[in-house]
Amino acid sequence: MKKKILSAMRPTGRLHIGHYFGALKNWKKLQDEYECFYMVADLHALTTDFADTKNIAQNSLEMAADWLSVGIDPSKSVVFEQSKVSAHSELFLILSMITPLGWLYRCPTYKEQQTEIKGKDLTGYGFLGYPVLMASDILLYKADIVPVGQDQLAHLEFTREIARRFNNFYGQVFVEPEAKLTKTPKVPGIDGRKMSKSYGNSIFLAEDPESLKKKVQNMFTDPLKIKKDDPGHPDGCVVFAFYEIFNPQKALEKKEICENGKMGCAACKKEVLQYLEEFINPIARRRKELIKDKGFLEKVLEEGNEKARQAADKTMREIREALKF
Amino acid sequence: MKKKILSAMRPTGRLHIGHYFGALKNWKKLQDEYECFYMVADLHALTTDFADTKNIAQNSLEMAADWLSVGIDPSKSVVFEQSKVSAHSELFLILSMITPLGWLYRCPTYKEQQTEIKGKDLTGYGFLGYPVLMASDILLYKADIVPVGQDQLAHLEFTREIARRFNNFYGQVFVEPEAKLTKTPKVPGIDGRKMSKSYGNSIFLAEDPESLKKKVQNMFTDPLKIKKDDPGHPDGCVVFAFYEIFNPQKALEKKEICENGKMGCAACKKEVLQYLEEFINPIARRRKELIKDKGFLEKVLEEGNEKARQAADKTMREIREALKF
Repeated sequence: MKKKILSAMRPTGRLHIGHYFGALKNWKKLQDEYECFYMVADLHALTTDFADTKNIAQNSLEMAADWLSVGIDPSKSVVFEQSKVSAHSELFLILSMITPLGWLYRCPTYKEQQTEIKGKDLTGYGFLGYPVLMASDILLYKADIVPVGQDQLAHLEFTREIARRFNNFYGQVFVEPEAKLTKTPKVPGIDGRKMSKSYGNSIFLAEDPESLKKKVQNMFTDPLKIKKDDPGHPDGCVVFAFYEIFNPQKALEKKEICENGKMGCAACKKEVLQYLEEFINPIARRRKELIKDKGFLEKVLEEGNEKARQAADKTMREIREALKF
Repeated sequence: MKKKILSAMRPTGRLHIGHYFGALKNWKKLQDEYECFYMVADLHALTTDFADTKNIAQNSLEMAADWLSVGIDPSKSVVFEQSKVSAHSELFLILSMITPLGWLYRCPTYKEQQTEIKGKDLTGYGFLGYPVLMASDILLYKADIVPVGQDQLAHLEFTREIARRFNNFYGQVFVEPEAKLTKTPKVPGIDGRKMSKSYGNSIFLAEDPESLKKKVQNMFTDPLKIKKDDPGHPDGCVVFAFYEIFNPQKALEKKEICENGKMGCAACKKEVLQYLEEFINPIARRRKELIKDKGFLEKVLEEGNEKARQAADKTMREIREALKF
């Protein structure tokens, strides 16, 4: 039997290439080796955005279109929406009961996000319980493995602890999931900061050709390299970072060429634009097809939701039995 | 259209006559005038008893048998189990998101129960969220009225506030329920303390005749009245308290007779035993019939659960629409 994986993204609308190299590329690979559950975490969106929910449904659909466009395959993986599977709420409530408040307050991300996220109301009971909801998502599908970044390790440790606590009280039901740390390249935005929708520095997965050209033209490069034959400093140059992502071998050559002032930034950008076009154009084409047929997308999600419900309800029956409910 | 009422009890197993005079007598009356939802609050039982769930299901069934025995009529009222209606968990999760932590910490019952309830782990995230779950129960059925005791007023105020907050964010969905304060007599246990299962001083609703006799014989009376013609002090006498419950008119006469030393405690107990027998015997007979046919009880609950699910799901659809989910 294949091992199971659960992974999720909050529906923030159209995805950018940072999402691809940070997660989706890995998701695509995993679906051949594992039974994968890929979840649109629309309920999670409420933890920080409860005051403004009007875009969540549309964002979910846009995100699913991106997933499918890059090769997430609903015939291999279960692609579904969290809010359409009521078992997530049911398990959240049950795990809430056995979660000591201290575990939540001591979660490193809780204080971090209070400091980092500005302009949102983070004083909610639900925001504090975010790790409980995440644990519910994972445990409901008995995921063996969860692909995480370093910043999510604490949440996974919480999930393992709460699984042990439940099993300890009521008997063995849950699998303790293991973290799968995946090294992913840092994808800078065109201004050199982290690529993020809120910074306005993103290249979208299905960026249209004209706007892609403009974005590459505006990429931040070494400000000390003005003329073609000025020696450049590739570290910190966005164009160079994209070489490293698309062709690490060639990046080594380019580094030398740039440092020796043998090539200008415009020529470099032209090459990187080509990489990007080759990568983005097929995705954009598929996405265009998909988004035209909203009914098809909805059907894909509904089928995924149904598969997820079946898997989740099976676990819920075991949970109720363990609780003697 | 009839106004709606929601009321609930935690499944603690067999009920005693304190439950009857404190709540069920009122429930029985309300079902003619209102559309009543009477809920077995089995999920609430988890807030304080998550470590020991083995009796919850059996306790729920026993409690439902008591309800039906005293005249709660499933053809008039919706009698159902909270854990069988997943919408309670779904709304709990959504309301969790919009509930400021401070509202929960400032709930007077939270600190009170920390002091009062001994020997249970009250440090849980779910225990803190108890008022959110209670609000979900009430709002899900759009109850207009909630019969409460003085000690529950703060929870109802919380429910009203959270309903306003939701309506304010997402548009008018919820009804703000009103409290219906009902004056109920204090029912003492046979030792004179509050009647409570944990004190071992209860008279059960379906107490069997032999044990009822013994319990009445052991009722606490005025310790200064030793001989029949000693003047008695009815205040604090358990037997007198039962006169007041069963026949307030006669209690006035008895008070004088007792204070003037015209009647002994044994004779008084005999009369009160008669009241109790007249009250309890028919209930006990009905209960015996009901408990013999576990399948019937389960069917009654399943029908109630289905009616509750329909009402709750209707509200959930409105909630999802309001959230644009």
